[in-house]
Amino acid sequence: MTAQLVVLNGGSSSGKTGIVRCLQAVLPEPWLAFGVDDFVDALPAAMRDSDAGIEFKPDGDIAVGPDFRRLDAAWVAGIVAMCRAGARVIVDDVFLGGGGSQQRWKDALGDLDVLWVGVRCSADVATGRELARGDRVIGMAALQADIVHEGVKYDLEVDTTHTESLTCAQTIARQL
Amino acid sequence: MTAQLVVLNGGSSSGKTGIVRCLQAVLPEPWLAFGVDDFVDALPAAMRDSDAGIEFKPDGDIAVGPDFRRLDAAWVAGIVAMCRAGARVIVDDVFLGGGGSQQRWKDALGDLDVLWVGVRCSADVATGRELARGDRVIGMAALQADIVHEGVKYDLEVDTTHTESLTCAQTIARQL
Amino acid sequence: MTAQLVVLNGGSSSGKTGIVRCLQAVLPEPWLAFGVDDFVDALPAAMRDSDAGIEFKPDGDIAVGPDFRRLDAAWVAGIVAMCRAGARVIVDDVFLGGGGSQQRWKDALGDLDVLWVGVRCSADVATGRELARGDRVIGMAALQADIVHEGVKYDLEVDTTHTESLTCAQTIARQL
Amino acid sequence: MTAQLVVLNGGSSSGKTGIVRCLQAVLPEPWLAFGVDDFVDALPAAMRDSDAGIEFKPDGDIAVGPDFRRLDAAWVAGIVAMCRAGARVIVDDVFLGGGGSQQRWKDALGDLDVLWVGVRCSADVATGRELARGDRVIGMAALQADIVHEGVKYDLEVDTTHTESLTCAQTIARQL
Repeated sequence: MTAQLVVLNGGSSSGKTGIVRCLQAVLPEPWLAFGVDDFVDALPAAMRDSDAGIEFKPDGDIAVGPDFRRLDAAWVAGIVAMCRAGARVIVDDVFLGGGGSQQRWKDALGDLDVLWVGVRCSADVATGRELARGDRVIGMAALQADIVHEGVKYDLEVDTTHTESLTCAQTIARQL
Repeated sequence: MTAQLVVLNGGSSSGKTGIVRCLQAVLPEPWLAFGVDDFVDALPAAMRDSDAGIEFKPDGDIAVGPDFRRLDAAWVAGIVAMCRAGARVIVDDVFLGGGGSQQRWKDALGDLDVLWVGVRCSADVATGRELARGDRVIGMAALQADIVHEGVKYDLEVDTTHTESLTCAQTIARQL
Repeated sequence: MTAQLVVLNGGSSSGKTGIVRCLQAVLPEPWLAFGVDDFVDALPAAMRDSDAGIEFKPDGDIAVGPDFRRLDAAWVAGIVAMCRAGARVIVDDVFLGGGGSQQRWKDALGDLDVLWVGVRCSADVATGRELARGDRVIGMAALQADIVHEGVKYDLEVDTTHTESLTCAQTIARQL
Repeated sequence: MTAQLVVLNGGSSSGKTGIVRCLQAVLPEPWLAFGVDDFVDALPAAMRDSDAGIEFKPDGDIAVGPDFRRLDAAWVAGIVAMCRAGARVIVDDVFLGGGGSQQRWKDALGDLDVLWVGVRCSADVATGRELARGDRVIGMAALQADIVHEGVKYDLEVDTTHTESLTCAQTIARQL
């Protein structure tokens, strides 16, 4: 396979970022890495706590508004354009809308070759890691552990519950 | 003017990021903000210290290799695509190649409306702020203060030597 | 004067940290730097949002509880002990209780030589810088700009409204 | 046991910080958390790369100078004083000198009750996690994995190779 784009999907604290860093280290060619966190950081501060933007509720749930959705679509278009311009890109995302979120990517991809990777982690273990990070709203990991995978189709799934990031990355790298 | 893209160019520690954050706060519409630092963070760790990538020399100078240039061009294409997809975007960049670096953007822009903003700061003051940040290689601010503006054409210039970020942002916002 | 401890007091976004970094750079001897932010980071995550701890209200005001006060007193005792053990230390603090907060330090100092430094910044300018940082609750800078100085006695005051961090640091260094 | 101080010792990327955050979350009383990283951050920037300070060599090894040692001793004295003033404190350290580094703490402790905890992680797994963090000098984890434990006596050892941070924290909490 000659995918130019790898999309990793998994809940909060499932270990996506660690896998991405390891993937960049083990792949022989340079790959750019972007994530939904980068997109949120690019938003105006005010939008992270308004109806038009993204809202982190006390229980860890997330709500998004129309401006968020419109800018998010533009961000996806930008990532796809980077691939068409010749870059290899790894993206980590959180499909809060499950299969619907994946479709949003598919609509933008055209004939671009993509490797879809599901990153699983049991809710229990992800919650412990959320606690260990010390800077996360507690509850997001458990809420998102399963719903982000509903209706999503993958080329490959990895599970960080009992497997290290580097081993997961090596499994993914073998498909590229 | 109806620019959908604002490009701020200035040396290290000239105050670009502060202006960008203020711009996002004062502009009525939501604007996404990206910077060359985000691009560097997206590179594999190994490329930040190799001939193929970017190298921060002890004296604060920076050298870039061919892989860096190729991926950087793809990143620029991605930002332009976000604008074409309907997003308003503010970019802060460091034109180490002066007018040549600006041309790299122009080649990718097509007919997109851009506001070019030069962010000046005296080398002395920028060096003091570099020291105050505590996490920068000392010397970059002075080295870059003038060379990044050589041969670059702006719609507007601001100078943070004696002017606050917010005031600079308000000046820029009036052009949008 | 042979102060072994420098205490800087000023409101949020008044520029304390930048001055501290510059002080460390211009002073010939090595000085350790600690701040009230380090203390807050040392607290359990749960205490940053509970009645027993510190609470950042939506308007930027801060409330503290009894556990916070007790642990804060122990932290002050620890800083003083570092000085008695031979270290030179620079501390930046926010005296939310004005003169009362200073007294809390005085009670712990015994005969230790201290240089008290007030860091002023006009509420307007501090609010602009708060916006420029992009990661602060908007409103704290204005709320704290004056109240933190009420009833506090200084050996020296600096004002970052129109003076760079490095220049303020040089003024302070001349007193040491 | 009624320890007021818990000292965790382990190599780079062995998982100390994650365990500390979990300990703070599971213990019913508030505990302050400090680490050797906080001490290094408190040093002047220049000391992190000079003979008088700490030097991170390209292969991940670390060398320290006399000023570093003197300030480090003062920092230890400060942590002990916080405990004597009534705070419960968790410290994570890296005993580069093995048993000698532990003795440095013992000399400062007097009759204070301490729980000594060894945090083990196989060099292989720690190296993978070092890669996954993306911001560490590669090689420190492997270099330090065993040497930091040489000649050190513990009340308790945990091993993060196959055990989550939260589980390790619960094991430690049962001893307190």
